Amino acid sequence: MATGTLNIGVIGAGRIGKVHAESIATRVAGARLGGVADINLAAAQSLASQFSAPRVSGDYRDLLADKSIDAVAICSATDTHSRIICEAAAAGKHIFCEKPIDFDLGRITQALEAVDKAGVKLQLGFNRRFDAGFAKARELVASGKVGAVHVVRITSRDPASPPLEYVRVSGGMFLDMTIHDFDMVRFLSGSEAEEIYTMGAILVDPEIGRAGDVDTCVVTMRLANGALATIDNSRKAVYGYDQRVEVFGSAGMVAVSNRTPDTHVHFAANGVHSATPLYFFLERYADAYVAEMQEFVRCVQAGATPPVTGRDGLVPVIMGLAATRSLKEGRPVRLDEIR
Amino acid sequence: MATGTLNIGVIGAGRIGKVHAESIATRVAGARLGGVADINLAAAQSLASQFSAPRVSGDYRDLLADKSIDAVAICSATDTHSRIICEAAAAGKHIFCEKPIDFDLGRITQALEAVDKAGVKLQLGFNRRFDAGFAKARELVASGKVGAVHVVRITSRDPASPPLEYVRVSGGMFLDMTIHDFDMVRFLSGSEAEEIYTMGAILVDPEIGRAGDVDTCVVTMRLANGALATIDNSRKAVYGYDQRVEVFGSAGMVAVSNRTPDTHVHFAANGVHSATPLYFFLERYADAYVAEMQEFVRCVQAGATPPVTGRDGLVPVIMGLAATRSLKEGRPVRLDEIR
Amino acid sequence: MATGTLNIGVIGAGRIGKVHAESIATRVAGARLGGVADINLAAAQSLASQFSAPRVSGDYRDLLADKSIDAVAICSATDTHSRIICEAAAAGKHIFCEKPIDFDLGRITQALEAVDKAGVKLQLGFNRRFDAGFAKARELVASGKVGAVHVVRITSRDPASPPLEYVRVSGGMFLDMTIHDFDMVRFLSGSEAEEIYTMGAILVDPEIGRAGDVDTCVVTMRLANGALATIDNSRKAVYGYDQRVEVFGSAGMVAVSNRTPDTHVHFAANGVHSATPLYFFLERYADAYVAEMQEFVRCVQAGATPPVTGRDGLVPVIMGLAATRSLKEGRPVRLDEIR
Amino acid sequence: MATGTLNIGVIGAGRIGKVHAESIATRVAGARLGGVADINLAAAQSLASQFSAPRVSGDYRDLLADKSIDAVAICSATDTHSRIICEAAAAGKHIFCEKPIDFDLGRITQALEAVDKAGVKLQLGFNRRFDAGFAKARELVASGKVGAVHVVRITSRDPASPPLEYVRVSGGMFLDMTIHDFDMVRFLSGSEAEEIYTMGAILVDPEIGRAGDVDTCVVTMRLANGALATIDNSRKAVYGYDQRVEVFGSAGMVAVSNRTPDTHVHFAANGVHSATPLYFFLERYADAYVAEMQEFVRCVQAGATPPVTGRDGLVPVIMGLAATRSLKEGRPVRLDEIR
Repeated sequence: MATGTLNIGVIGAGRIGKVHAESIATRVAGARLGGVADINLAAAQSLASQFSAPRVSGDYRDLLADKSIDAVAICSATDTHSRIICEAAAAGKHIFCEKPIDFDLGRITQALEAVDKAGVKLQLGFNRRFDAGFAKARELVASGKVGAVHVVRITSRDPASPPLEYVRVSGGMFLDMTIHDFDMVRFLSGSEAEEIYTMGAILVDPEIGRAGDVDTCVVTMRLANGALATIDNSRKAVYGYDQRVEVFGSAGMVAVSNRTPDTHVHFAANGVHSATPLYFFLERYADAYVAEMQEFVRCVQAGATPPVTGRDGLVPVIMGLAATRSLKEGRPVRLDEIR
Repeated sequence: MATGTLNIGVIGAGRIGKVHAESIATRVAGARLGGVADINLAAAQSLASQFSAPRVSGDYRDLLADKSIDAVAICSATDTHSRIICEAAAAGKHIFCEKPIDFDLGRITQALEAVDKAGVKLQLGFNRRFDAGFAKARELVASGKVGAVHVVRITSRDPASPPLEYVRVSGGMFLDMTIHDFDMVRFLSGSEAEEIYTMGAILVDPEIGRAGDVDTCVVTMRLANGALATIDNSRKAVYGYDQRVEVFGSAGMVAVSNRTPDTHVHFAANGVHSATPLYFFLERYADAYVAEMQEFVRCVQAGATPPVTGRDGLVPVIMGLAATRSLKEGRPVRLDEIR
Repeated sequence: MATGTLNIGVIGAGRIGKVHAESIATRVAGARLGGVADINLAAAQSLASQFSAPRVSGDYRDLLADKSIDAVAICSATDTHSRIICEAAAAGKHIFCEKPIDFDLGRITQALEAVDKAGVKLQLGFNRRFDAGFAKARELVASGKVGAVHVVRITSRDPASPPLEYVRVSGGMFLDMTIHDFDMVRFLSGSEAEEIYTMGAILVDPEIGRAGDVDTCVVTMRLANGALATIDNSRKAVYGYDQRVEVFGSAGMVAVSNRTPDTHVHFAANGVHSATPLYFFLERYADAYVAEMQEFVRCVQAGATPPVTGRDGLVPVIMGLAATRSLKEGRPVRLDEIR
Repeated sequence: MATGTLNIGVIGAGRIGKVHAESIATRVAGARLGGVADINLAAAQSLASQFSAPRVSGDYRDLLADKSIDAVAICSATDTHSRIICEAAAAGKHIFCEKPIDFDLGRITQALEAVDKAGVKLQLGFNRRFDAGFAKARELVASGKVGAVHVVRITSRDPASPPLEYVRVSGGMFLDMTIHDFDMVRFLSGSEAEEIYTMGAILVDPEIGRAGDVDTCVVTMRLANGALATIDNSRKAVYGYDQRVEVFGSAGMVAVSNRTPDTHVHFAANGVHSATPLYFFLERYADAYVAEMQEFVRCVQAGATPPVTGRDGLVPVIMGLAATRSLKEGRPVRLDEIR
């Protein structure tokens, strides 16, 4: 291993753990896959073997105890994130953590304090910021090409509902799905939400309603810089993963549309036909997952603050809680009500 | 004049009166421009002369008294609409009336009753329904191609703020500008709004705020069929008139984007460049203005009910009043509160 | 009639005569429809009546003899063009003439000499130059935005084959259909063809082959400025009228694509669907027909040289003859071989 | 190493050798990077080290002699391809070979005979066939969705001229650059060229002309199935790598456009701006390089014939020689003249 290579242990060998393990092992410059841990030891072993990770365990503490491991990527179940952050920070590991840190603001705060105290780097997994299109939109906004921001519009629709057992523990649509869009509003606008109003509906699957959640929503918010934002979500778009953003301002607008698997256009007598959007997040954000991990590695190696901070992990949860309360109480909710 | 040709008098020789006079005189099959009236007689004379209208007057009552005139197109100031409708109906003229009928629900009701009593045809000037793109969207929705409607999204932005003196008498953004989008929500979804929530902001011009209005807004609503709708408006988009709609449902989505003056694409080292949208409503909806008048003529001649009824003129005003109240009171407002 | 209004007689009341009569009567500023002539008197009467033309005749010479008529639009059969040009010039009428002037270079030259001698204005009906997209492409080329021209690419496909009786008298594909594209090459590049090579095929309809023509072709040419150009034509594209151009140069490229009746996009599970191109030339070039006539009127009134000159009518015929010879002899043909 | 994994040695550690080594080591299922050879030993060592290849040498014969190596990817200089194919075949290695096999038809034939005799698999590196868009176009053609093929149109432009020393040994534009497009014509049409006509020009760089080559060309050809094809090439498009194909037929058309790094669109007062195409072949065809190697591995493991055969390596060279002769002699050249 070359001097300076960051040795990263992946905690959690599920879907997203596999993505990060592969990135670290084969795509990210300056990184090495140091180990894989999962309470399902067989899953950990399979993933470790695929990418020749030297260490594998059924207990993530083994990775934290391993002096050769510099950093961990926390890809385990959400309810373990805040605890593992605290322990990893205490062990002096730099931390990449999937969103959300927790649904409980107290536990999030505790985790962020542990990180601060340990002086390790923490980056949250808001992968969409690293999508080439969204990053370009942010760049244009930041450089003044759209002027003062007036309206942010986001559409985010999944191609299929998650399993009901997932819905039940997901924290609800706003904390599970809209949370990414809340992050996008902050990222794109460079401002913070002050007030949120939510309309929700159960249109995709009545079982989601029986599980206490909604499957369709429109969220509106007012930002500190005066701009307005609107997000619409659906758990099911039959044409695939629909991920679009738009920032409108005094000097113009930037809009980012979906990516497709190919650019063919078929002209026939009955119409003009082209490809549906890339199916889901693994396809749409494949490059973004690599880019965010690359940036994490770069920041740790450079001693720089990662671009998605602990606070970036906290605020969208507050927004999600405000949106949830707005839905329940049928009124706009100010973020400072959420404490 | 061929038997069956509808002889139409145009009342009001301003911007939109000119549009309709030209359509009637040169574009609409089965119609003839029978006269022009405007309190500004010179304006009426100029327009009448341009399209060889046989009668011209400074008083619309002259057109109503003219037996040869079968129908009138009311293009005068908004505060004269309800009165002229009543008088035209009493005179047995079929009526095409620009939106809105009035800002006062009582006067609208009175006008609609006069129309009903006289048994004349009335069509409201919601021209966007006749835009080829929006009409196609409605057709796809109506034919089930997007399935059950889940979310309607509309963006509607003007290229430049109107004069402040206009803003002051316009009835406010929701009754002047959003009213078209309210109509679109009804048209596209085939359903009615039940509850409306509005966020507004003054971002384009502080003078608009001093005039008691907003210049930027996001309106969210819940429809009777369970669907949600969101509209965002701005008084000023520097890149031109931005008019887009989207209907998302259980079986897909239809989106309608802007039209451009041409389809050139310029590939240069510094980027790929193309044309901005058609500048404003006269350009974007040029064909729609002809089509709506053609349909009015067709319906009168066939004895059919015009596709944009008196009720279609009433409901968007109620929606605008609900949106206005929501903005003032900072809460969602049910339409049945507006009476 | 206002002083200065150009009184235009339309000769030929067929498809294209109707287009120009309507433009002159209702769309073109500063023009008036002074009369209609057609050897089919009923057709002339019908058209004259529709647009209230004061004079109608079965003989175009009546229009030429009418002192009140300032100009004629020659829309009759191709084999009458050169003769009517000569007579109209002798009568002192300004002339708008549909392409081509003739298939015989001698008769074209004679007609152009008659025009020169009479000192009247002549504009050829190469309507595509007035298409907003193609005009924009030319503007970008002329202003240097694509740099030195390297390659011109044109695709031009009709939605359906013409009747066989038309094919037989059309002069062949290169003089009937490609002639428009030859004009586009000259217009877009600002240069002249020196050498042309043609490949042709009979793929659409064997009857076209039996009539001695081809229905599919690729024409390649070398221009005086060193650039290359390629045109591909087909008599039948099932998805509609396909009219695209592209100019590639040292500083970039401009491409112009088709126009569609609307801009809807339908996202469904089985693909993304949108509208086919506008069906045929009357739809695609509706605005261009008005614009070319407006420009003719403007030039006559201003005493300016029309933008599509007699020479612009001559050269594409030479190109068509060269292309025809190339097809027959299976070799590249230089334009200076055609005399 | 798992049973059945294909152990591949990469011969040539230059630009394309690096691409294939990385694919084999990290992207291609069922493959392993068994070694790297390059006459520049340091380059071989560097590449082998990066992807942990167990064997490295300055002589490709060491890879051929290694019993553990099942297959080789020939990525060395073109003039070594045919020789290495012969030797690799004799050594019983399956062969993936970059295009072209050779510029000499005799040496190509010899190499293909060696492959046949040895009974090893051979796949040529026509990577574009594996581009998702082009593959989709082929799929639509093969399934009859465009009907009988009438016209194939290909535009292929590099973003920058290669170094002059490269131009001098490249075999000329037709054998170096157009050869890919010749392959595309065959792939997309499912037919063979019978006759080729070429126009070439020196418009990008006069030095290319002094080196005896052209830098801009339009190639036209007639195919055995009666269809026509046209290719236009340029050595330099300032807006990036321009790679588009179009197949037009009796039932429609399929067109494939460029890919961009992102899908943002920036609407400003001065126009609408978006991203230029992906810069060059390494970006545009990144996925295609992986896909072609995956298919090679799959075919070898399944005992199947690779989809790009030795004959697919031979025919485009014949086409390139015909195009070259056509350019020199200024006439269409039949492929059966090239022997």
